[in-house]
Amino acid sequence: MIAPPAKKTRVAVLGATGAVGQTFIRLLAKHPWFELAELAASERSAGRPYAEAVHWVGDAAMPESVADMHVRACDPRDISSPIVFSALDAAVAGDVEMAFARAGRVVLSNAKNFRMEDDVPLVIPEVNADHLGLLEVQRARRGWSGGIVTNANCASIMAVMALAPLHEAFGIRRLFVATMQAISGAGYPGIPSLDILGNVIPYIKDEEAKIESEIQKMLGRRTETRIEHAQINISAHANRVAVEHGHTVCMSVDFDSSVGAAAATEAIREWRGDPSARGLPSSPDRALALSDLPDRPQPRRDVGAGNGMTVTVGRVRSDSLFDVKLVAMGHNTIRGAAGASVLNAELLVATGQAGTA
Amino acid sequence: MIAPPAKKTRVAVLGATGAVGQTFIRLLAKHPWFELAELAASERSAGRPYAEAVHWVGDAAMPESVADMHVRACDPRDISSPIVFSALDAAVAGDVEMAFARAGRVVLSNAKNFRMEDDVPLVIPEVNADHLGLLEVQRARRGWSGGIVTNANCASIMAVMALAPLHEAFGIRRLFVATMQAISGAGYPGIPSLDILGNVIPYIKDEEAKIESEIQKMLGRRTETRIEHAQINISAHANRVAVEHGHTVCMSVDFDSSVGAAAATEAIREWRGDPSARGLPSSPDRALALSDLPDRPQPRRDVGAGNGMTVTVGRVRSDSLFDVKLVAMGHNTIRGAAGASVLNAELLVATGQAGTA
Amino acid sequence: MIAPPAKKTRVAVLGATGAVGQTFIRLLAKHPWFELAELAASERSAGRPYAEAVHWVGDAAMPESVADMHVRACDPRDISSPIVFSALDAAVAGDVEMAFARAGRVVLSNAKNFRMEDDVPLVIPEVNADHLGLLEVQRARRGWSGGIVTNANCASIMAVMALAPLHEAFGIRRLFVATMQAISGAGYPGIPSLDILGNVIPYIKDEEAKIESEIQKMLGRRTETRIEHAQINISAHANRVAVEHGHTVCMSVDFDSSVGAAAATEAIREWRGDPSARGLPSSPDRALALSDLPDRPQPRRDVGAGNGMTVTVGRVRSDSLFDVKLVAMGHNTIRGAAGASVLNAELLVATGQAGTA
Amino acid sequence: MIAPPAKKTRVAVLGATGAVGQTFIRLLAKHPWFELAELAASERSAGRPYAEAVHWVGDAAMPESVADMHVRACDPRDISSPIVFSALDAAVAGDVEMAFARAGRVVLSNAKNFRMEDDVPLVIPEVNADHLGLLEVQRARRGWSGGIVTNANCASIMAVMALAPLHEAFGIRRLFVATMQAISGAGYPGIPSLDILGNVIPYIKDEEAKIESEIQKMLGRRTETRIEHAQINISAHANRVAVEHGHTVCMSVDFDSSVGAAAATEAIREWRGDPSARGLPSSPDRALALSDLPDRPQPRRDVGAGNGMTVTVGRVRSDSLFDVKLVAMGHNTIRGAAGASVLNAELLVATGQAGTA
Repeated sequence: MIAPPAKKTRVAVLGATGAVGQTFIRLLAKHPWFELAELAASERSAGRPYAEAVHWVGDAAMPESVADMHVRACDPRDISSPIVFSALDAAVAGDVEMAFARAGRVVLSNAKNFRMEDDVPLVIPEVNADHLGLLEVQRARRGWSGGIVTNANCASIMAVMALAPLHEAFGIRRLFVATMQAISGAGYPGIPSLDILGNVIPYIKDEEAKIESEIQKMLGRRTETRIEHAQINISAHANRVAVEHGHTVCMSVDFDSSVGAAAATEAIREWRGDPSARGLPSSPDRALALSDLPDRPQPRRDVGAGNGMTVTVGRVRSDSLFDVKLVAMGHNTIRGAAGASVLNAELLVATGQAGTA
Repeated sequence: MIAPPAKKTRVAVLGATGAVGQTFIRLLAKHPWFELAELAASERSAGRPYAEAVHWVGDAAMPESVADMHVRACDPRDISSPIVFSALDAAVAGDVEMAFARAGRVVLSNAKNFRMEDDVPLVIPEVNADHLGLLEVQRARRGWSGGIVTNANCASIMAVMALAPLHEAFGIRRLFVATMQAISGAGYPGIPSLDILGNVIPYIKDEEAKIESEIQKMLGRRTETRIEHAQINISAHANRVAVEHGHTVCMSVDFDSSVGAAAATEAIREWRGDPSARGLPSSPDRALALSDLPDRPQPRRDVGAGNGMTVTVGRVRSDSLFDVKLVAMGHNTIRGAAGASVLNAELLVATGQAGTA
Repeated sequence: MIAPPAKKTRVAVLGATGAVGQTFIRLLAKHPWFELAELAASERSAGRPYAEAVHWVGDAAMPESVADMHVRACDPRDISSPIVFSALDAAVAGDVEMAFARAGRVVLSNAKNFRMEDDVPLVIPEVNADHLGLLEVQRARRGWSGGIVTNANCASIMAVMALAPLHEAFGIRRLFVATMQAISGAGYPGIPSLDILGNVIPYIKDEEAKIESEIQKMLGRRTETRIEHAQINISAHANRVAVEHGHTVCMSVDFDSSVGAAAATEAIREWRGDPSARGLPSSPDRALALSDLPDRPQPRRDVGAGNGMTVTVGRVRSDSLFDVKLVAMGHNTIRGAAGASVLNAELLVATGQAGTA
Repeated sequence: MIAPPAKKTRVAVLGATGAVGQTFIRLLAKHPWFELAELAASERSAGRPYAEAVHWVGDAAMPESVADMHVRACDPRDISSPIVFSALDAAVAGDVEMAFARAGRVVLSNAKNFRMEDDVPLVIPEVNADHLGLLEVQRARRGWSGGIVTNANCASIMAVMALAPLHEAFGIRRLFVATMQAISGAGYPGIPSLDILGNVIPYIKDEEAKIESEIQKMLGRRTETRIEHAQINISAHANRVAVEHGHTVCMSVDFDSSVGAAAATEAIREWRGDPSARGLPSSPDRALALSDLPDRPQPRRDVGAGNGMTVTVGRVRSDSLFDVKLVAMGHNTIRGAAGASVLNAELLVATGQAGTA
C-alpha cells in the first residue's frame, strides 16, 4: 500500500443524492487520502441537510458524518474542493463538468458526455493508466488548468477488465458481447419492479453502442495527442435481469492469430495490470480473479470480491466460432461506477497528475 | 383448423409425475384428437392414483380427469396406447423409449438420447416437417413398426424458430447465441432458490453443445437416408436467470452474402412455416410473432402468446460484426418441450405417418 | 348465467392509461353486457389515440379494439356513457367522480375518496349486495340521479371474502390481519425494483387503517339510511412482498362464542354468498375456494382461479389465542380492483339499480 | 471488548457441509477465542478434504484454512475438541449430540431436539443468560460432565429479541406473530426456486408451534431446577417469502396493563440486555437497533447490521386490538442460527461455565 499523503485532499460529490452519488459517499466517507468536504445536488436539494434531501437506498447505513452536511449547488462558486466526483445525469453533466474544469478543478466523471472526446481520458487504472497523459493535451487545447477524466459505462468496464490481458498478449480482432445487467445500473427509482421481477428486458437504451465504442477506446493506444482506438470489431447485446448488483458479461473473442483456451486462461491468471495502479487505497489485491468452478462467476456470490473492485472471470473455454469464450462479472456501482472514479482520482494523486489540485 | 378425426387416438404419458409430464397432462387433458388414456412413471409411483403419486407444481390446477388414474410402469406390456409421449429423464429414456418403439408404438420424446441419431427425426413441424420422412428409414433399419420422433432442447427450439425464415431466405453461415433460460427448464425440484434468486448462473450442463448441434440438424436437409446438417458455425453461451417460464435468446447472424436488417425483418414477418403444420390443434395462429416495441420480447409479457406455442422475435437490427442481430423468446415447457411433442404427434396423425398407431 | 340484456350498455373508463385502467380495458373489451365506448385520462393523454397515450404493462396484449380509440378528458361533458368505471388516483378522483354522479352517471370507483362516506355503498356482491340500497339514500341526499358505488381496497376485499361466511355464521368479534401484498397493488411505475427485489417492505402508506375500517363497513348491516359498522376489533399489519399479482392475508379470528376449526371450515366450504351475485358475467363458479393442501393458497399458483375472481382460502386451523386462523389469497387487480367494479356494475344492471343508466 | 483468553479453545463443527455448517465455518475461521480444529459430517463426506466434500453456497468465499481439513465422522471418538457446534439435522442430532455430551463435550446446538427439554437451556445471551445455570441441573441429572446448550429456531429468536425489553418492562400477556421468513432458513438445496420465485408459501412445517413454545421458554424464569415458562398466550403465522437472508416478524403485543407506543419505544431504545453478553467477540454494539424510518426494518437493507447479530425493530405503534404493534427483522443464519451458537459458546467461556471444556 502506498503511504498516505501528509494531508488529505478535500473532495466534493456532485449529484450526491442519487444512487451513484450515495455509493460515492459510502466509498469516500472514511477514505485515507480524501476528505469528503462538500456535497452538491440539484436546486431542489441545495440548502438542505443531506439526510433530509436524500432518499438513502443503499444496503449499508448512511455514514453519520454526512447526515448534517448542507447540500450545495452544482456550481464551482459554491464548491471549493479541488477534486470533484461527478455522479450527474448526462442531461446536466456536460455544462456542469465543464464549468468545474474551467474553474481549475479535476472532475472524475461517470457521465457519458465527454467519454468519447478525443482529449478526454477514459480510464481504468490497471488497463490504461497511461491514457491519463491526455490531460495535458486537454489542458492545452481547452485552456483550463483543471480537467475531466472519465470512467466508462459499467458494462464496458467489466468487459475491458477481462479483455485487457488477452488484448495485451494476443491482440483481439473480433468480439461478441452479451450482457446481463443488474437493476442498480439504472439508478433509483430506475426500473419499476413490475417490469423486471421474474423477467428479462433485452434492451438498455444506447447501451450497446456505448459498449462497442468504449471498449475500442479503452483498449486503444495513446499517441501524442489522442487515443488510437483498438481495431476490434464488436457486437454487443445488452440485457437487464433481476439481479441487484453485478453485471455478467458473456464474450466470444477472436484474436489476430489462433489462441487456445489454455493460453488465454494463463494470460488472465498472470495479469496484474499497470503497476501504477497497485497499492492505491481502492486497489483490490487482484483486479482480476479467475474462478475454476464450472458455474462461476455469479453476481450474488462474487460481486463482493475485493470490496467490489475485483472482476471475476470464469468459464474460459474454446469457442467453436472464434478462439475462446469466457464470462466476466463485477460490481456495477463500485468497479463499474463510483469505485472506478475514486480509483482514477487516487491514481491522479499518486502520479502527481491532479495538477493544481 | 383441420377437422377432428372420427375417433380419438389413445395416448400415454411416460414420466407423468415430473414437471414436463405435468405439462403434457395439462395439454392433453382436453385434446380434441387424443384421449389421455394412460399415465406411467417410475416404480415408486406405479400402482398409485396419480393425485397421490404426483407433487403437482403447475400454475393451473391438476385436471380432475387424471386425479384417479392409476399410474402404470414405463413398460410397453403395461401400456396399450399406440402413441406415447415421453417426459423421461435421459438416464432411463434410452431403454424405455426403444422398448416402446420395438413394441410398435410411436414415441414422441423430449429426451436427448436419440435426438442426434442419424435415423431419428428432430422435428419442429413449421420448420422441418419433411424430416419426419426419416421414420421410414428408421423403421426399415431398426426393424420395428413403431418409431421415435424427438423434439429438441428448449433453447434450441427458440433459436431455430427465429432462424428458420432467415436460413430459408438467405442461408446462415455463422451464428452467435446467448441464452437466458428460465428455471422451469431444469424441472422440479430443479434449481434451488438459494442458487438463483437475484442471481445469474452462467452455466447449464451440456447445454451449449446441444444448442450448437441441434440447430445444425434441425436446419439441415433431408436426403434419402439421413439429415445433412446445415453448415453453420455456431457459438452458444447458456445462462440461467430468475425467470419462471420463457427462454430468451440473443443472436448475431452472419449470412452467405450480406443481408440487411430490413430484409431480415421482412423474412421473419412473412414466414408462415410448412403448410402441413397449419391448422393442427396445437398450432398457434402465428408460429412466429414479430414485435415492433423496442424492448420486446420479454418472458413475462410474451410467454403466453399463442397459448405458449408462439415464439416472439424482436429487436431485429444491424450487427456491426455479423449481418443482423435479434432476440427470440418462447415458452420453454410448452413450445420448448411438451407442446412441441404434442404438435409433432398431431402432424404425424394428420399426415398419416403415425403408422400402426 | 343470467341472459344477456337485449342491448349492451355503453361504458367508459376514467384513468384508462394507468395499471388499473388497463385491467378494466382487458375485462371490458369483450364483455357480453357492456360496450367499452369511451376512454378518458389526464390532460396529458387526452386527444391522443389510446395506443400512443398508454405504456401498456399487462401480461396479455392490449385488445386491438382500443388501440385507435381517442382518449378523452375526465369530464362528463366529454363522456356520454351512462356507466363509468373510475381507476383514478385519489388525488383527482373526488372532484371528477362527483361531477359524473351529478351529471347522472353511475360511477363504479376504485378510489378511496368516497368509500367511507355514510351514503356510499362499499360493495362486494357476494357479501353485501343489499348495501347497494344506499344508492337511493345517496340520490335523495345529494340530489343527483347518478351515483357512486365503491369497491374496497384490494387487501380488504381478500379479507372480507374469507370472513363473510364466518361472520354470517358465528359473529366475529376480534380480528388480527397480516397481509403480504403484491407489487401490482401499487400501480405502475409503482415500487422501484431496487426497493423490493429479494426484499420485504413492512409498510404500505395508510393501508392498515383502510383495512381496519373497510372490513367493518363491508361486514356491517344496512339500516334505512346508513351502514351500521360491524363491531369487530381489528388489528392490521400490511407488508409488500416480491410477488407480481395476488395478495396473501393471514388472519386470526375470534368469535362471539367459541368456534372450532371444523365448524369454520364447514362454513367456508358451504358458503355461496348472496344469490343476486350468481350468474353474472364476471361471477366465478365459486367466489370462495377452499384448498385442502397444507401449503396453499399461494399467489403464483392460485391467483388465476375463477379468472382472478375466486379467493382461495386454506390452512383453516385452531388458534391458540383466538378461535381459528386461516389464510386467504386473491388477485388484487382483478377481484381486488377492476374486476370488483365490473362485478358491481353487473349487479346494478341485473337488479335494475343502475337508474337512468 | 473482553480480553482474549491466553489460549484459544479448540472447537469442532458437526454437520459442517450443510448451509448452517458453512455459516459456522465462516464465523469461526478467524475467531479470536476459538480455533476451528475439526469438521465433521455424514458418512458420505467423512474422510474427504472439506473442499471436496462441500458444495459451498455462501456469498463469501470459503475460508482457505478449511479447504484441506479432512472431514471426520460425527462421533466423539473421532473428535477431540471440548466445544462442539452442531448444525446437524434433527433426524440425527438427538443421538449424536447426546453422545458428545456424555463424552464430556459442551455441545452448542441449532437442532430442535433438546430445545424444550426441562434441563436444557434455550439461550440468547442478551435475554436470558441466567438460563445457562440449567447446565448444572442437566449435568447432575444426566450424569455427564459435558452438556447441551441450544439456541432457538431462527424466527423465535427475532421475536424474542424484540420482545425482551417489553416483557421485562411491562409483562406480555398475549401476542400475535406473523413471520415472513427467508429461503436460507430452509437450508440447501432447501426451497426449489419454482416454489418461491415471485411467490409466498404460507406454511413452514412445525414452525408455528416452535415459535409459540420457544418464546414462552426463552422469556421464562429460571427456578432451581427448571424454566418456568412465561404465561404468554401466543398465536403464530409462519410464511416463506422470496428473500435470501433475513426473517421479518410482525407482532401485536398485549401487556398485563395498558402500555402506549411511546413507552414501548422507549423500553426498546433503552434496552441493552444482560451485561454478561456485552463485549463478547460476536456481540454487536447494539443487540437491538431501533429504526425511525417509516418503512423499516427491511431484510435487504438491515440484515447486515452488527455483522448480522443486530436485530432491527421498527414501526412501534399503537394497536387497535392489543397495546402495541411493531416489526422486527434479523439475519436468520447468523443471529438466528450459527452466530447464536457462537455467542452462546463465548458466554459459556467468559463465565467459566464451559466446564471441563
